[in-house]
Amino acid sequence: MARTDFSRIACSIARSAAIVGDGWALLVVRDITLGLHRFDEIQRDLGVATNVLSDRLQRLTACGLLEKHRYEQHPDRYEYLLTEKGRDLVPALLALMAWGDRWEAGPDGPPLLMHHHDCDHTTEATVTCRRCGHELTADTVDYRPGPGGRTAPGTALIAGLL
Amino acid sequence: MARTDFSRIACSIARSAAIVGDGWALLVVRDITLGLHRFDEIQRDLGVATNVLSDRLQRLTACGLLEKHRYEQHPDRYEYLLTEKGRDLVPALLALMAWGDRWEAGPDGPPLLMHHHDCDHTTEATVTCRRCGHELTADTVDYRPGPGGRTAPGTALIAGLL
Repeated sequence: MARTDFSRIACSIARSAAIVGDGWALLVVRDITLGLHRFDEIQRDLGVATNVLSDRLQRLTACGLLEKHRYEQHPDRYEYLLTEKGRDLVPALLALMAWGDRWEAGPDGPPLLMHHHDCDHTTEATVTCRRCGHELTADTVDYRPGPGGRTAPGTALIAGLL
Repeated sequence: MARTDFSRIACSIARSAAIVGDGWALLVVRDITLGLHRFDEIQRDLGVATNVLSDRLQRLTACGLLEKHRYEQHPDRYEYLLTEKGRDLVPALLALMAWGDRWEAGPDGPPLLMHHHDCDHTTEATVTCRRCGHELTADTVDYRPGPGGRTAPGTALIAGLL
């Protein structure tokens, strides 16, 4: 599959998109988070073509989100586990899930509920400021060039227009 | 472009992926958030092919994230604005940006810094529990079938295995 190389764009959203800006990749990470670890389990759950699943598992492993772990020998059998980098993506997926619950769930309501161990409640993710703890919204933030910004395609804005 | 219809999967991550699980769509929303509203501006910033940009703008408009607004007549000129639904996606993008900053920025550091008006600090997004305010992590949540769950491809897990 021809893929655009978003990683060349000096933007952390673009770099994230290069890795997970693809529906199947997101759903593979979701399935592994939910407890499915083996190729066959994920394939059956998603109903995804084996070559597509194979490609996404390989790519997510190469990008450091998954590790392939042999759990049985003769014959060798493997499972996929989230790395620290992969596990660290889960909160962003939960933020995406909360958005989907608000805007796409329809009259039936959310397909999946999240239970939080810390407070022992059914809850939803919210995106907050690490400094003050207030909820972040599109209107309460603005953006400034960071140390890793540079003039390149996809960053004209970051480098020059702000 | 042939696209998988993720929206048939009864999962809010899948439904979100159906809309924004695509690098260009994410970057278009990013550009509009950052203040670029016109086709030419976004095209120039991203260096994206015009047919691809056209497709993404149309799809994001059809999905209710953008609205096309005529800002000049004779000749008609249009700009794209985020709707309430589109603006509500921004926090999830900020969570994705924070992940990209942590894992993909490299030695140069983040390309873009976020400034929060409420506390007047450079900050980053964190994903927290709406009930107790603690940070959510992959290990502190589990999932249960919700009212909108059903047995269908992509939801075997939600419907049966939990």
